[in-house]
Amino acid sequence: MERIERHASHGGVQEVWKHASSALQCEMRFGIYLPEAAARGEKCPVVYWLSGLTCTEQNFIGKSGAQRYANEHGLIVVSPDTSPRGEGVADDPAYDLGQGAGFYLNATQQPWAKHFRMYDYVADELPALIEARFPVTEARSIFGHSMGGHGALTIALRNPGRYRSVSAFAPIVAPSQVPWGEKALTAYLGDDRAAWKHYDTVELLKDATERLPLLVDQGDSDEFLDRELKPELLRAACEAAGHRLQLNVRAGYDHSYYFIASFIGEHLAYHAKALR
Amino acid sequence: MERIERHASHGGVQEVWKHASSALQCEMRFGIYLPEAAARGEKCPVVYWLSGLTCTEQNFIGKSGAQRYANEHGLIVVSPDTSPRGEGVADDPAYDLGQGAGFYLNATQQPWAKHFRMYDYVADELPALIEARFPVTEARSIFGHSMGGHGALTIALRNPGRYRSVSAFAPIVAPSQVPWGEKALTAYLGDDRAAWKHYDTVELLKDATERLPLLVDQGDSDEFLDRELKPELLRAACEAAGHRLQLNVRAGYDHSYYFIASFIGEHLAYHAKALR
Repeated sequence: MERIERHASHGGVQEVWKHASSALQCEMRFGIYLPEAAARGEKCPVVYWLSGLTCTEQNFIGKSGAQRYANEHGLIVVSPDTSPRGEGVADDPAYDLGQGAGFYLNATQQPWAKHFRMYDYVADELPALIEARFPVTEARSIFGHSMGGHGALTIALRNPGRYRSVSAFAPIVAPSQVPWGEKALTAYLGDDRAAWKHYDTVELLKDATERLPLLVDQGDSDEFLDRELKPELLRAACEAAGHRLQLNVRAGYDHSYYFIASFIGEHLAYHAKALR
Repeated sequence: MERIERHASHGGVQEVWKHASSALQCEMRFGIYLPEAAARGEKCPVVYWLSGLTCTEQNFIGKSGAQRYANEHGLIVVSPDTSPRGEGVADDPAYDLGQGAGFYLNATQQPWAKHFRMYDYVADELPALIEARFPVTEARSIFGHSMGGHGALTIALRNPGRYRSVSAFAPIVAPSQVPWGEKALTAYLGDDRAAWKHYDTVELLKDATERLPLLVDQGDSDEFLDRELKPELLRAACEAAGHRLQLNVRAGYDHSYYFIASFIGEHLAYHAKALR
């Protein structure tokens, strides 16, 4: 495990590390923001951030502006790359499949099954690594954007008791019903739609055993709103299941990091309250 | 003049425009952040941001986090590209000369003299354009980073009465005395060092007719500190001239946008106070 970047930032330190991942069978990178309190040696709770299609760990750490709020609340924020990468890792020319498009699942189909195990990486390997190497408490929360919002919601729903809170920006909530998801789930999991239900928020809500409330922000000028995101399906699923949802529709906001940066302070305040 | 990007951001709007520049004889781009007050039609004061070597208008608008503070204070922030660009524009393979390295001067030497007139662009053409097309008052301030800090300080010093306030992050303060500057000034202005004095903050301070105070932030872990930045030369020049300087040395901070983002709120508060 090797630290490859270190920048003082808003009173704390933004770092990037690389390590050999056993789940993914390749080298992985993640960002970690350590607030001033952690730099002083105090144990801090951790919020995991999952990015969207095409992103690496760099998008979030460079563009979200999360550091200011993380330092204010004394939160460590961990932001992994979005997929396995490297020369030996399967890929596809499209931006929405293969490297940069891991979809936070464990692939069962070829040529993806060997490396594409982002579910295991985010749910198990990465937290174990963080908890072994950094001054963290066992209190965890998780959030993400778009494909990463899908990852955060599905991983939280499948692991009751693991996270204190969960939130998402413009998440893919029903991958089984939209083009991005149908393409990725077919490629990674095969044609049997029963296997897709384990990675679909709207499906998982039906049988959730822990009713952790969902906080979701969605811009109403998001270019992917009607085709890929469909927050109305999340609203209906939460209503049907009696699952608490706070869905903030933000007038004029699009799918970009300008949207994320505008509201990430509210999300980190929400997680800080749950993690206290 | 054409708007090519528009993103809701922190209550206002971040836009990018392109236009044919008469000073630079090429197409130019600039970012402009319009706070909510400007979107409502209120006239707002303008702060100009000048970026450093290799940057375009994108670095600042994506990474600085300025929008939050600009909206709070009701400031428009304009962030031009750092140099002329395009196929017909002279260039050099090095990152510190040619496209991306305009040094905010008017070149007199070949092959640079036709397009490299960033001084005229920033001091005259761009403000005239902004004042003709956007809801702005005539109150202006200017700031920048590294090469752009040099630009902000020299343009403010050479134009008494034009700016209400000026500040810089990790500026090049004495280009005549450091490698980046000696290389660029030789190429753009020739070997006669008398011509260099018009673009050198430490030199301009000697004869400044307006004693506009300087606010400068400098990280003490900046990788360019000792070789290129030398804030001690600025401190000595200000002391010798009786020019007010607030030099904030920030422990642990480097030359990156993580440094800028950490303190840009303080700089925008400083400009807002002067612009009120």
